[in-house]
Amino acid sequence: MQNELPENAKMVFKGELFEVWQWEQKMYDGSTHIFERLKRTDTVQIIATIGEKIILQTEEQPDRPKAFLSLPGGRCDGGEVPLVSAKRELLEEAGYISDNWMLWQKVCPYRKIIWDVHTFIARDCVYKQPPHVDAGERITAHHVSFDEFLKLSQESRFRDKSLAALLLPARFDEIFRGELHKTFFGK
Amino acid sequence: MQNELPENAKMVFKGELFEVWQWEQKMYDGSTHIFERLKRTDTVQIIATIGEKIILQTEEQPDRPKAFLSLPGGRCDGGEVPLVSAKRELLEEAGYISDNWMLWQKVCPYRKIIWDVHTFIARDCVYKQPPHVDAGERITAHHVSFDEFLKLSQESRFRDKSLAALLLPARFDEIFRGELHKTFFGK
Repeated sequence: MQNELPENAKMVFKGELFEVWQWEQKMYDGSTHIFERLKRTDTVQIIATIGEKIILQTEEQPDRPKAFLSLPGGRCDGGEVPLVSAKRELLEEAGYISDNWMLWQKVCPYRKIIWDVHTFIARDCVYKQPPHVDAGERITAHHVSFDEFLKLSQESRFRDKSLAALLLPARFDEIFRGELHKTFFGK
Repeated sequence: MQNELPENAKMVFKGELFEVWQWEQKMYDGSTHIFERLKRTDTVQIIATIGEKIILQTEEQPDRPKAFLSLPGGRCDGGEVPLVSAKRELLEEAGYISDNWMLWQKVCPYRKIIWDVHTFIARDCVYKQPPHVDAGERITAHHVSFDEFLKLSQESRFRDKSLAALLLPARFDEIFRGELHKTFFGK
């Protein structure tokens, strides 16, 4: 799916998170319409393994009545390279480091927003220091097994539906499950 | 997942498709930050059955280089009730009517946008008149089998990833597949 703005697009509003862009689009009958798309900062998330476990977070945010499940992650602020953001977020939110990083997936979750979610795998993570989260987050970390992690694919509290869809086949297909385990853990 | 704006939220921009809303959010440490969320018109889509087939569309739009696969559907313009929009869109885009309608799923695909996608099932559709699409669409209709339809769950050209995730278990689980067939076709 195309994930770029046309050359004649102009930013018409810049908010806290989102920019609104518009352009004159020629239609199939030769008429023109104003088309609109949004832009937001790219984000990263990390599948961080410790032995045979994966770090999973229960997260609360002040504008949400219910906790949700998430991976460590956040925004690529200030044009930061995604891998740098991923290392920073894993250390800030979870307190872990790794020297075995791989970009696994880059997904644009919603075609009307120019926005990529980079999912990294960080193998054999090592505890470095206590987590330090900002005033807009409350995070509790769990270490879950591979099978528990796969159950996120059908867990309503897990907010990343694109990732959920990637995990789901592994619940049903032995070969795919083996391949995914190897991708996450290297064996 | 909560899908409402807080009472102190104000609209700060109104675009062609999206409204931008902001509010002062109290954080966990007592400080405040400006939070932001978007609003867009709700949409509908229809799983329309004809005998043992389902209507699937190949769709082009003038700002997209590649065709994609979709169900008949569109926006609930002007505060239209979703079922009314669904009947209108099925007739406009596909030329079919049904007297057997059911709301199957209501999904908010992305938590930062106040937006519901209503997926209806319209059974035993009957051809009424030639489709009439607007200048921003090129649509070709196909009638696919239930098994072909389930393959959309892993088809990159199918844009609705929430629906894809709902279909996927039926590819692997016999019991779920039978239940889904009954939901779509009534038998």
